[in-house]
Amino acid sequence: MAETLRIALAQTNTTVGDFKGNCRKIIEYINKAKNTGAEIVLFPELTIPSYFPEDLLLKKRFVQDNLKYLDGLAAKVRDIIAIVGFVDLDEKTGNTHNAAAILNQGKIAAVYHKICLPNYSVFDEKRYFVPGDRPMVFDCNGSKIGLNICEDIWVPDGVTECQAFAGDAEVILSLSASPYHKEKRKIRVEIGATRASFTRAIVVYLNLVGGQDGLIFDGNSFIVDHRGELICECAQFIEDFAVADLDLAAVRQFRKEDATYHYDKKAYKSLYQPELVSLSPHVRKKNLPDATATCKVPLSHLEEIYQALVLGTRDYVRKNGFAKVVIGLSGGIDSALTAAIAVEALGRENVIGILMPSDISSEGSVNDSLDLASNLNIETKTIPISQALDIYLTLLKGTFEDRPVDSTEENLQARIRGNILMALSNKFGWLVLTTGNKSETSVGYCTLYGDMAGGFAVIKDVWKTLVYELCNHINSFAQRDVIPRAIITKPPSAELRPDQTDQDSLPPYDLLDAILEQFVEKDKTVKEIIAEGYPREVVKRVARLVDINEYKRRQAPPGIKISRKAFGKDRRMPITNQYQT
Amino acid sequence: MAETLRIALAQTNTTVGDFKGNCRKIIEYINKAKNTGAEIVLFPELTIPSYFPEDLLLKKRFVQDNLKYLDGLAAKVRDIIAIVGFVDLDEKTGNTHNAAAILNQGKIAAVYHKICLPNYSVFDEKRYFVPGDRPMVFDCNGSKIGLNICEDIWVPDGVTECQAFAGDAEVILSLSASPYHKEKRKIRVEIGATRASFTRAIVVYLNLVGGQDGLIFDGNSFIVDHRGELICECAQFIEDFAVADLDLAAVRQFRKEDATYHYDKKAYKSLYQPELVSLSPHVRKKNLPDATATCKVPLSHLEEIYQALVLGTRDYVRKNGFAKVVIGLSGGIDSALTAAIAVEALGRENVIGILMPSDISSEGSVNDSLDLASNLNIETKTIPISQALDIYLTLLKGTFEDRPVDSTEENLQARIRGNILMALSNKFGWLVLTTGNKSETSVGYCTLYGDMAGGFAVIKDVWKTLVYELCNHINSFAQRDVIPRAIITKPPSAELRPDQTDQDSLPPYDLLDAILEQFVEKDKTVKEIIAEGYPREVVKRVARLVDINEYKRRQAPPGIKISRKAFGKDRRMPITNQYQT
Repeated sequence: MAETLRIALAQTNTTVGDFKGNCRKIIEYINKAKNTGAEIVLFPELTIPSYFPEDLLLKKRFVQDNLKYLDGLAAKVRDIIAIVGFVDLDEKTGNTHNAAAILNQGKIAAVYHKICLPNYSVFDEKRYFVPGDRPMVFDCNGSKIGLNICEDIWVPDGVTECQAFAGDAEVILSLSASPYHKEKRKIRVEIGATRASFTRAIVVYLNLVGGQDGLIFDGNSFIVDHRGELICECAQFIEDFAVADLDLAAVRQFRKEDATYHYDKKAYKSLYQPELVSLSPHVRKKNLPDATATCKVPLSHLEEIYQALVLGTRDYVRKNGFAKVVIGLSGGIDSALTAAIAVEALGRENVIGILMPSDISSEGSVNDSLDLASNLNIETKTIPISQALDIYLTLLKGTFEDRPVDSTEENLQARIRGNILMALSNKFGWLVLTTGNKSETSVGYCTLYGDMAGGFAVIKDVWKTLVYELCNHINSFAQRDVIPRAIITKPPSAELRPDQTDQDSLPPYDLLDAILEQFVEKDKTVKEIIAEGYPREVVKRVARLVDINEYKRRQAPPGIKISRKAFGKDRRMPITNQYQT
Repeated sequence: MAETLRIALAQTNTTVGDFKGNCRKIIEYINKAKNTGAEIVLFPELTIPSYFPEDLLLKKRFVQDNLKYLDGLAAKVRDIIAIVGFVDLDEKTGNTHNAAAILNQGKIAAVYHKICLPNYSVFDEKRYFVPGDRPMVFDCNGSKIGLNICEDIWVPDGVTECQAFAGDAEVILSLSASPYHKEKRKIRVEIGATRASFTRAIVVYLNLVGGQDGLIFDGNSFIVDHRGELICECAQFIEDFAVADLDLAAVRQFRKEDATYHYDKKAYKSLYQPELVSLSPHVRKKNLPDATATCKVPLSHLEEIYQALVLGTRDYVRKNGFAKVVIGLSGGIDSALTAAIAVEALGRENVIGILMPSDISSEGSVNDSLDLASNLNIETKTIPISQALDIYLTLLKGTFEDRPVDSTEENLQARIRGNILMALSNKFGWLVLTTGNKSETSVGYCTLYGDMAGGFAVIKDVWKTLVYELCNHINSFAQRDVIPRAIITKPPSAELRPDQTDQDSLPPYDLLDAILEQFVEKDKTVKEIIAEGYPREVVKRVARLVDINEYKRRQAPPGIKISRKAFGKDRRMPITNQYQT
């Protein structure tokens, strides 16, 4: 019975549907792992198709192709155990499973089917998969190892306990694709530590990294030992690779000496028995290089969010085949933050800023944008919109008759700007990044086909108050005013009518954001929020604005989820809805 | 033991979240049913909140409010059994159930929890509900009646058989909210007849009617007797009410004489035992008026689709609080069909047509639109767009430099038109109806923020070939050319560059639609479609166009589902997707 187990963590960034590229990357990491003498190399959930293919899974051939690639991969795996995620197909029933394959000596040695399928928040796994019905433990040189997939480890008194107690697993491997939101890291490590310390097993949690449409997978894979101590933590938001020696002897010793362990084990043993898979014995190498696993220092709260936005932007742009992006620079803080993120994600040479002043625009809006562009060292173009607005007003004069000026004219300006950005996008193949934040997206303080026009909404899930924090963070990190001070200090304004500020139409942002967080992210109702001490009329108005603007959000571009509940498939509200919240 | 059972079918059109209005309507129909002497009145699935509240269900108070309304309703029900759908809450676990309540003598006499929860196609019921674990049969004057909810009756060897065989149910009541698609009627009646003839029970299928965002519930409730014969069929696409006398004596006699019935019953009896609920005996009235149930003649194939589009448009517009709609009339067949549907749905006085000719527009496009408007007797306004286009081209000249003219300039024209329609919408509170069909939505032959700009996409799920059929149908039904002949006969064109026709960019529509049907609705891959004999290069190009235009569809307005698979939550494709179909 081996005293230690050397395991490699391959925290890869794959692309949905890119079987060829994903398998090339898997092979690369397998070879890297072999060079370190690792006995096992672990990949994220659904490695081969990448997470999450959504309705591509309903195309039979997609699933068959993924199986072909798995077979091709298996044939190439020798002298190491590689564990990869894939979609399994039961030919008899036609059922598909979210699965993991243990590849060993040129073959698929065993397959595990995920038992707990998440079907909440952004997840729809029950739409696609049939749950597995049996936990699995495999034997590697006499050590028992439990194999888990993502949600399996989140459910208490479930798969993990069964593997450790009934199946005697000393190590639990979790293949994951766990999307990022603020403070998710802490929650995940706690889950890992809770399962590890209760089962007195080492938990190896391997998470996907990369952006897929609006979801960010932050990597940050980790290992927790049998006492619940974090012994390895991979980088956040980038590909990473770590090799760890797991001290199995220590696990055994600890279990022997721990009286309550035997009590807990007994309580579980009778419930169910996991499948036990034996692998052909594996020859351990001598004179291995040292294991490299360390605990990387986690990013600060703001840096974590910033890196999520950078990765999300980079992966959406690159994985969709774009080279450059174009951003309308209004002189406001939202477009400034968006531009700064884009430069970090794509390089300054791939970001073009467009200034589109009107007669209403303040002098500051142009100068501040030029300062920003100069700080970021990006190209700009200036295209004034007044003439276009005049023409529209002339064309519409007969129809509008003597109706008073209202938000129609404001929206027209925003839409002219949207048209110009889209024309540049069409002509030069640049992707338009929109700049709306979560506060305005919530209450509909934005123009459909105007400032909402574009391919990707970088800060769609970022409250306005957090926009300020992030800008200050960027400046303090850079130790200079990348975002010009004037942009941060001036009162926010859409500049769509003279002397307008956001606070003419909206409550102050700190109050607005606090109410919105309760209403949008925590699903509280007006009455509940008022009961918490927020002003009645403001709460009612804000809730109503959120509800009646669902139609706008339905036509918004996708954006990066950084909160517990983002707009999009995370929050599926009917448009037709007469409920009085 | 009663020989007959008088049942009332209340095929209601309710609105999501409108608890007050929905309950008012329920009371109205209960009273109507009592006047006919019915012993039972049946309502659709989730009657109180209406189907489907989506993430409103995650708001605790929404569920609590629905329970309050149920209690209020129950207190008012006397001298009849009313069966209504609602959301049940288990206070201990916090679990919610898709439920039906049997209301009797001022009380909730019993509650059933739906067992089969659909989580495919447009359905996400497992996101919200925990399945029930016990079929239910209740006793009404000595007759055994099984209560089912929607999906329960679709699953073979399931709830229905258990109720009839193990629970001796003579009647199966199914509360449904089954969305419409082409030819769904036949499928539903067949399911009803199959269950009825196998269990030798009378099946009463009560379906919701009305539009909810993109989904149409077509009503068309029906009764199938124990031999599988259709004995009642309600109207399609409108509220309806029917009263039927169910011949229980005939069911009993039939079962007695049918040897295989006893064999089938025995086979099921041992499996599970449904819950049996006894209701307080109900005094039957004398001298009742005759039952009114008849089999209404089903609509023809084209009339059915047309009525689905009419109902979908009317309910989206009205339930969202709009009075009038505005439509850009291009002189083409798509806007003509959309306008005709809107007039049927809302009345001619609530439809405004806008002509927005450019220098490229043919004379026909204006004249044909005016003819159409005159046939439909709707108001029009003409706003030419050439000056606006000129300004944009001037503004962009410096940036475009000497780049050749391409689709950018075409998109600009479409976006100017979009802006004008939206300006009218903003100024007058009219809802913009978009006019894109499914063929162009599939391949992205449409302009984001241009012709795609608007609140509701009436014919989004209608193939171009079907657009023609529907226009001919409208004309032949009206026995005059409501849609001018010229619009039907001219070659389709976007008229965004001189002498353009759709067939410059796309394969002929009959070929295109046939390929798209395989690829989009049947989830076949390129190889499979080619294997069926379609031209290789065309199939490859069409599939590629569908895949790369997912980003456009993500920002499209909702529209009416009439096919087995519509765009939207029925087809959840990733944008970031490198799969080579």
